[in-house]
Amino acid sequence: MVIRGAMGLPVVGMVGGGQLSRMTHQAAIALGLSLRVLADAEHDSAALVAQGVSIGEHTSLDDLRAFARGCEVVTFDHEHVPEGLLEGLEAEGFAIAPGSAALRHAQDKLVMRERLAALGVPVPPFCPVATVADVEGFAHHVGWPLVLKAATGGYDGKGVWVVSDREEAAEVLAGGMRILAEQLVPLRRELAAVVARSPYGQGAAWPVVETVQSDGICVEVVAPAPGLSEERALEAQGLALRLADELAVVGVLAVELFETDDGVLVNELAMRPHNSAHWTIEGARTSQFEQHLRAVLDYPLGETSLTARWTVMANLLGGDEPEPDTDRRLHLLWGRDPGLKVHLYGKQIRPGRKIGHVTALGDDLDEVRRRAQVGAAYLRDGTWPDDWPHT
Amino acid sequence: MVIRGAMGLPVVGMVGGGQLSRMTHQAAIALGLSLRVLADAEHDSAALVAQGVSIGEHTSLDDLRAFARGCEVVTFDHEHVPEGLLEGLEAEGFAIAPGSAALRHAQDKLVMRERLAALGVPVPPFCPVATVADVEGFAHHVGWPLVLKAATGGYDGKGVWVVSDREEAAEVLAGGMRILAEQLVPLRRELAAVVARSPYGQGAAWPVVETVQSDGICVEVVAPAPGLSEERALEAQGLALRLADELAVVGVLAVELFETDDGVLVNELAMRPHNSAHWTIEGARTSQFEQHLRAVLDYPLGETSLTARWTVMANLLGGDEPEPDTDRRLHLLWGRDPGLKVHLYGKQIRPGRKIGHVTALGDDLDEVRRRAQVGAAYLRDGTWPDDWPHT
Repeated sequence: MVIRGAMGLPVVGMVGGGQLSRMTHQAAIALGLSLRVLADAEHDSAALVAQGVSIGEHTSLDDLRAFARGCEVVTFDHEHVPEGLLEGLEAEGFAIAPGSAALRHAQDKLVMRERLAALGVPVPPFCPVATVADVEGFAHHVGWPLVLKAATGGYDGKGVWVVSDREEAAEVLAGGMRILAEQLVPLRRELAAVVARSPYGQGAAWPVVETVQSDGICVEVVAPAPGLSEERALEAQGLALRLADELAVVGVLAVELFETDDGVLVNELAMRPHNSAHWTIEGARTSQFEQHLRAVLDYPLGETSLTARWTVMANLLGGDEPEPDTDRRLHLLWGRDPGLKVHLYGKQIRPGRKIGHVTALGDDLDEVRRRAQVGAAYLRDGTWPDDWPHT
Repeated sequence: MVIRGAMGLPVVGMVGGGQLSRMTHQAAIALGLSLRVLADAEHDSAALVAQGVSIGEHTSLDDLRAFARGCEVVTFDHEHVPEGLLEGLEAEGFAIAPGSAALRHAQDKLVMRERLAALGVPVPPFCPVATVADVEGFAHHVGWPLVLKAATGGYDGKGVWVVSDREEAAEVLAGGMRILAEQLVPLRRELAAVVARSPYGQGAAWPVVETVQSDGICVEVVAPAPGLSEERALEAQGLALRLADELAVVGVLAVELFETDDGVLVNELAMRPHNSAHWTIEGARTSQFEQHLRAVLDYPLGETSLTARWTVMANLLGGDEPEPDTDRRLHLLWGRDPGLKVHLYGKQIRPGRKIGHVTALGDDLDEVRRRAQVGAAYLRDGTWPDDWPHT
């Protein structure tokens, strides 16, 4: 199937109208493309800014098929398209990237854990559990508290529970989901190794970053990860590139890692542009969004070198006000920090929802980090520290 | 008039659906905005990628008014809206940026020359001419050959003639346009000083660049201008900032300059994002497109520092093939030069038409320059030098 748009260039569709589609569309514009988006609603983040928007359900084969018909290749801004539908599209000859055989490892944590364990990739001790007795048996090996995870459907800390005893475990199991238990790993910090892979088999890695979570939501990313030895960085990049290859990923693969005293363990996989690489928009010569498009179109991948010594991204989460005066805050924020890069997603504000991010770049890590943190907090709450900018 | 979109952010409209609108929309996405575009046709460069597109005539007050009604501020991707219509919109209370009183200096070369001369700004010797006798009288002072220019409507070398004698001059005058005559200045090279100014009066300048023209069309921009003394660079930046202020420009102001043995002379003004600053997308911390939006919205302007020692932009002009296999060429080009940044405008290809640009960045000027030149030539013609990449 060859579906071409302006200048004879391919038409790429992305399922999902969130900020990842929005920022992918932004990158697509440079490549002469106009991203087609399958969105849930007209006010979705990407639907506000892209020209070719279809409204439909990502759980409907009919909607997916109608959407795919207009695209040379279809990719995804989330993992929520059911595996059976992905296989159905493939059986009908539609090109999807990543393919269902890869994507299931980002959709189902148990499938992923089992595959990674079989590949000899370090993962936390885990066990599928169906009953409280299963959990207790596993606790016998790893101790309480431990982690229970929904095998499918979780994100941003949803679908993950730290449980301290059999009663708390029973409560989670009562939900009726497929659950796996994991050791609560004693970690130093979280890292992410983000790479891309093309169908041709080319791989490209950005530097490994440190990610900071709060309540299961990523709040800050520091690139490159401070104080990470070159040896461990290469180990993590190599691991991510190997996984991209073993799982035949096409597009961006984000490997979320736990750093422990003994090395790194794989926590989660995502096969799409990922929050831990938003910093690449300004901080790297090729952004993850351009790279994802290059990968799904099997173009040679772009250079991943850095544009600054340090880049820090802070997520902007919705605060308590339903309608903060973001425009006024932007005026005042940029008056104090004209170099701060701001990304707003056009989303309705709910407490804790990711509605944007800010990026700071520079030579002094402490300063760059503080600029990003203060900027995001100011856009959210309208307050900043008395000593800001640093006095 | 307060017209707000998603997240309570202002709605900006741009008249004109060309690549400048296209790239401004790209920048708008990060700022939480979705640029509204008034385009001539649905297949216009910006109309292919923006969500809020109106089709209409920029020479129709009705169309302009209907468009402006949905926008908090209206700006422009060209200078072709007649001055009377701009004044009409202003009289009706619509906010346009830059305003008509500024924009006329970018619309009418004679008005511009007279104003700049009155301000004591160095310009080439010039004279309005209506008859061949006028031209001959002027030639008496500056000699043949000399330059005739249409006061309005010219771009990319159109509306500019180098004439060697009275017969050639007569031919130009026979066109019936308002014409000015100028000395053919003995120039070393052309430079551009690009700045932005906000209504608040804040100004920001990027480094002065060297621009290379061929047949009156910009083919290459080198940032910063090689070998330019700091003194002359500051002189040019200061001149551009002063002009932005004197003319009360709002948005980006590009000042095209002739560098002569004695200093710089102002050649042309543009009050919008300009070809000579496309390099800022990757080469500066704030691109001209983001800066233009910040300026017309009266946000504090962004940092203009560089992200690389050298940045070179080469324009991609349409070649002789109406339908080159651009997709295939992209594959092969990026295979050789994965760091080259490519911008394609989605435009139909005509020989000599600007259909995209490429940008190279790095530490070695000769190499960066060659990468940009070879990349643009390859996308146009499908051929590259035998020794590329440098062997």
